[in-house]
Amino acid sequence: MRHPDTRLARPVAPGTSRRGTGLGEVRVTGGFWASRLETNASATLGHCQEWMERLGWIANFDRVAAGTTAGHVRPGWQFSDSEVYKLLEALAWEHGRTGDVTVNATFEALAARVVAAQDADGYVNTCYGHAGQAPRYSDLSAGHELYCTGHLLQAAVARIRTTAGPADPLVAAAVRAAEHVCREFGPGAREALCGHPEIEVGLAELGRALGEPRYTAQAALFVERRGHGTLAPVALLGPQYFQDDVPVRDAGVWRGHAVRALYLAAAAVDVAVDTGDDELLAAVERQWTRSVERRTHLTGGMGSRHQDEGFGDDWELPADRAYCETCAGVASVMVSWRLLLATDDVRYADLIERTLYNVVAASPRADGRAFFYANPLQQRTPGADLLPDDVNPRAEGGVRAPWFDVSCCPTNVARTLASWPAYTATVDGDTVTLAQYAPGDLDVRLDDGGTLGLRVTTRYPTSGHVRVQITSAPDRPVTLRLRVPHWAGGASVTAPRAAGAGQGDPRPARPGWAAVRRTFTPGDVVTLDLPTAPRLTWPDPRIDALRGTVAVERGPLVLCLESHDLPGGTDLADVRLDPSPAPRAHGDGATVRARIAPPPAAPEGTPPFGSGPPGPAPDDTADLTLIPYHRWAERGPAVMRVFVPTP
Amino acid sequence: MRHPDTRLARPVAPGTSRRGTGLGEVRVTGGFWASRLETNASATLGHCQEWMERLGWIANFDRVAAGTTAGHVRPGWQFSDSEVYKLLEALAWEHGRTGDVTVNATFEALAARVVAAQDADGYVNTCYGHAGQAPRYSDLSAGHELYCTGHLLQAAVARIRTTAGPADPLVAAAVRAAEHVCREFGPGAREALCGHPEIEVGLAELGRALGEPRYTAQAALFVERRGHGTLAPVALLGPQYFQDDVPVRDAGVWRGHAVRALYLAAAAVDVAVDTGDDELLAAVERQWTRSVERRTHLTGGMGSRHQDEGFGDDWELPADRAYCETCAGVASVMVSWRLLLATDDVRYADLIERTLYNVVAASPRADGRAFFYANPLQQRTPGADLLPDDVNPRAEGGVRAPWFDVSCCPTNVARTLASWPAYTATVDGDTVTLAQYAPGDLDVRLDDGGTLGLRVTTRYPTSGHVRVQITSAPDRPVTLRLRVPHWAGGASVTAPRAAGAGQGDPRPARPGWAAVRRTFTPGDVVTLDLPTAPRLTWPDPRIDALRGTVAVERGPLVLCLESHDLPGGTDLADVRLDPSPAPRAHGDGATVRARIAPPPAAPEGTPPFGSGPPGPAPDDTADLTLIPYHRWAERGPAVMRVFVPTP
Repeated sequence: MRHPDTRLARPVAPGTSRRGTGLGEVRVTGGFWASRLETNASATLGHCQEWMERLGWIANFDRVAAGTTAGHVRPGWQFSDSEVYKLLEALAWEHGRTGDVTVNATFEALAARVVAAQDADGYVNTCYGHAGQAPRYSDLSAGHELYCTGHLLQAAVARIRTTAGPADPLVAAAVRAAEHVCREFGPGAREALCGHPEIEVGLAELGRALGEPRYTAQAALFVERRGHGTLAPVALLGPQYFQDDVPVRDAGVWRGHAVRALYLAAAAVDVAVDTGDDELLAAVERQWTRSVERRTHLTGGMGSRHQDEGFGDDWELPADRAYCETCAGVASVMVSWRLLLATDDVRYADLIERTLYNVVAASPRADGRAFFYANPLQQRTPGADLLPDDVNPRAEGGVRAPWFDVSCCPTNVARTLASWPAYTATVDGDTVTLAQYAPGDLDVRLDDGGTLGLRVTTRYPTSGHVRVQITSAPDRPVTLRLRVPHWAGGASVTAPRAAGAGQGDPRPARPGWAAVRRTFTPGDVVTLDLPTAPRLTWPDPRIDALRGTVAVERGPLVLCLESHDLPGGTDLADVRLDPSPAPRAHGDGATVRARIAPPPAAPEGTPPFGSGPPGPAPDDTADLTLIPYHRWAERGPAVMRVFVPTP
Repeated sequence: MRHPDTRLARPVAPGTSRRGTGLGEVRVTGGFWASRLETNASATLGHCQEWMERLGWIANFDRVAAGTTAGHVRPGWQFSDSEVYKLLEALAWEHGRTGDVTVNATFEALAARVVAAQDADGYVNTCYGHAGQAPRYSDLSAGHELYCTGHLLQAAVARIRTTAGPADPLVAAAVRAAEHVCREFGPGAREALCGHPEIEVGLAELGRALGEPRYTAQAALFVERRGHGTLAPVALLGPQYFQDDVPVRDAGVWRGHAVRALYLAAAAVDVAVDTGDDELLAAVERQWTRSVERRTHLTGGMGSRHQDEGFGDDWELPADRAYCETCAGVASVMVSWRLLLATDDVRYADLIERTLYNVVAASPRADGRAFFYANPLQQRTPGADLLPDDVNPRAEGGVRAPWFDVSCCPTNVARTLASWPAYTATVDGDTVTLAQYAPGDLDVRLDDGGTLGLRVTTRYPTSGHVRVQITSAPDRPVTLRLRVPHWAGGASVTAPRAAGAGQGDPRPARPGWAAVRRTFTPGDVVTLDLPTAPRLTWPDPRIDALRGTVAVERGPLVLCLESHDLPGGTDLADVRLDPSPAPRAHGDGATVRARIAPPPAAPEGTPPFGSGPPGPAPDDTADLTLIPYHRWAERGPAVMRVFVPTP
């Protein structure tokens, strides 16, 4: 393989003409995301490592390396290795993004402990296959061995693209692991698959990173093997749980465990793109369409059922029991990003933005040391405060937890934030497309030579004014495209006239891509104005759980009403949102007119069903403040709702 | 102990003055319940036994008896013994109710196989404690050993009261088992408890049946031990799951796994009544009140969460994901019946009726050979037809299943229907109170001598006219009370005037107990007229999941709209119920005026949230028929809803 160009390091690199920006092409310098990337670097990465040291999840590798697994009760679930791999991936991106040598040293030390645990034939797993453990691949439905390997491969991909390539010990270990998987599960070998998709994206991307088509072929094999009901059931869950009910290319909608469904969909796009399988790509697009139309929450969150961490039926979108696992948000971004690269359809970028602001950014606490696992849109009882050293046994509750018994989300947030700049823009020929907005500098290599330098200045998402100054450009026409989100009716773009003729007049820009093609001169400015006044958002009447309610959004932010902002003594259950006066901007949230209903009077012990229809709108009004959903529960335990009943 | 009077055989027999009718005092001769009791006898009992033979759950006892457990993979969950015991209990009541000698022979043959598996010290369980099995009581949180024993004790209670008393082999085995439990878990022994309450009701009732206060004391010990967080967690579920979070006497509401919460509450009433513990009784009444006010579905169903089969938060009453386990319905009847006997409060009888008609009767298919486990109030996608020999791996879905992987419900329905007449009426001194209405003959022994004979004639619940003819009465004043349900505003009672003076005029009867005290003469007639015109029922506005909807009830029956009754091509999601014309009676259901809304138009791939408020009421109207909820899905897979949106 060629030595990688670390400027272009990015998680997803299909061999198509459209590509995402590399970490070295984008520098986020301020605003919403810069602070989160900084907190991720300064707090979350270390936090994750400390917890996994404390719980022995990293020492599990040392024990395998030392051959002392026998007679030892291994801490952690069978998939805890994957958290170590996701942390390694996050560290690799972070090192690639900043060049921080301390981060690199941390990576190398941790990677060495993983590599030491690898068996001679390439198998690496701390839960199976060693003295006192169940045999390798003895529980493919629930054992998560290939899932873990997939995350190891993704960590190696990050390392290859940000540093030295295959000479790196972790990369070499990943190659041995991938070869082992191909031997064990390749054509003519064991015709089996893992209960939790993930090996597929790992193999596909490692194949891209190393130019090794056998890995892509193995990923394709795993994708095609799923959907034929061959996985043994797990507990009382049917084959739909792990998408083993219908083959990917035949399915019409996402169903079952959301993270599994989405990791699988991401892999299907990878395979479709790499093999030119348009039917498979169309299948994932069809599933995305139907799932976004009927099975996706306002926040972009996916998954409505706690029972199987899964999608529910069409229109089953309960605010209170919305699961919206943080990892499903990460996985949804993975799918939509791949589809955006494959199709250039703006709707994928829109969903990425919605999900990043309202699921991924909602998970970590401001200090980066506690997380939401589930992200419901309504909380009826305030969560109990967790102590700093409490592991949350449950994946739910109204308080962010430092760590979980199943702790997939913190490291998933960490790797996503560490690679965030790679999702900022796409490049195709001489066209650069800004998909997300954050203050910063881009220096993008155009595919046909030269670079386009951009300085983005904005207070997005609170303000919708985005100023893009050209800092360098080739001496020929190039195209700059700016995303006009679907919610931004009334947007406008201002671009320079022909060279030297000054700034043009604002022209309306419909949702979609607003393109400006010019021979740009450094100093030229393109501005985008997106209306970010708070707006009312009404649910489709087929969503039973949200009937009679309205939400407030502002730009890409979903807002919520939290009990901290209620007048003393008011129960959130008694608040009605009066939609007749338009909500007004207030800080980064909004102020609305509310009406406070007295709770219905009923004799004691009476069921909550009566002969009278709902009463008239209450007279008692109050102005209430809504805050961005991603910031809820930052002021201590609270009750909260995104959708508020109307009078 | 005294030889029992089998005429008075009944499941719950506290030593208080108020008692329930014995199976020998009531003969149900027709109508809604008679057909169900008959189907239970002719189909369900045999069906349950066939399935448990086929799956090897009964053979598990043979294997223990033969000492051949080693090296054998035991079929069934760890609690499958309890299904055999519940079937035995059902057979015992059925024999008591009808005197059918074939049923008795079936009981004796099955009981013999259970008794043969008992260890010398009284322990009996086919999953623990024998060669190749985990040790006894090695997993109290999830092992269900004491739970199983509790059901064995309840079967023995049924046997004692319907036949010969302690000389019966199963009764003798139960006594040995109870003594074993008292030795192992009594004062000074192991201070532990079972994750699933049930041993408590079993011990308390066996104590009553045998006059053995040590069993009651042991039940009280178990009740008091719960709520102190001593049970090891099961999977990711916290102590609330098995009510180990708060002591029973301190709790304000039911929470966690619904069946566990309700079996425990039933036991707490037993203990409170037998020990004169008014504080404990008040605690359960308080929990009932709060739970019925805020955590109970319109059908009487309890449990809103699939994840832990549990109660949710206050106001968390989703129609689509309502769990409303059939067993929780049975357990709710158990609790309310005990509270009714303890307090004479009519609201307990009201909830029993609601639950019997809309949960317990909804579970079995008309032929008694398939069952609902969960009883949601909305089904969005038609269930797939199950083959007659399919075990349903899941406790949900829109089609009744012949059997379940966890098959607690069929035998629970069976034992409840077999003892149904015992819940018909209460007796206290010279007062006889009809709590439920069914055509039949009662011959009730008055506590202070003599009997009151009643012939009930009615087409209840379709008609609200109930005629009670006195067939025998002592020559002194006695009181006959009739229940006027809470929904029956405008009811009236007609009673005979003084002897020989003919029938009196109808007088209004408010919800509660309508009492008639007379020196009755055979031939006297008391009539009750309950309005059973279909009525609209509106949910409390704090129930988010039901906002903007209305339901239709008729007498004690909750009605539902099923897709079979929609015009061709109409999607149930597009139906609105126009509440302005009153619903009209139609068969045993109702006809309503509906408006059919066209589905909202939205661009493909758009999230189901928009900038426009709900549109005006659709013009397209149709008359639609609603059927009793208990009969839904009898015409093949269907979509269904109880609460229908209003225009």
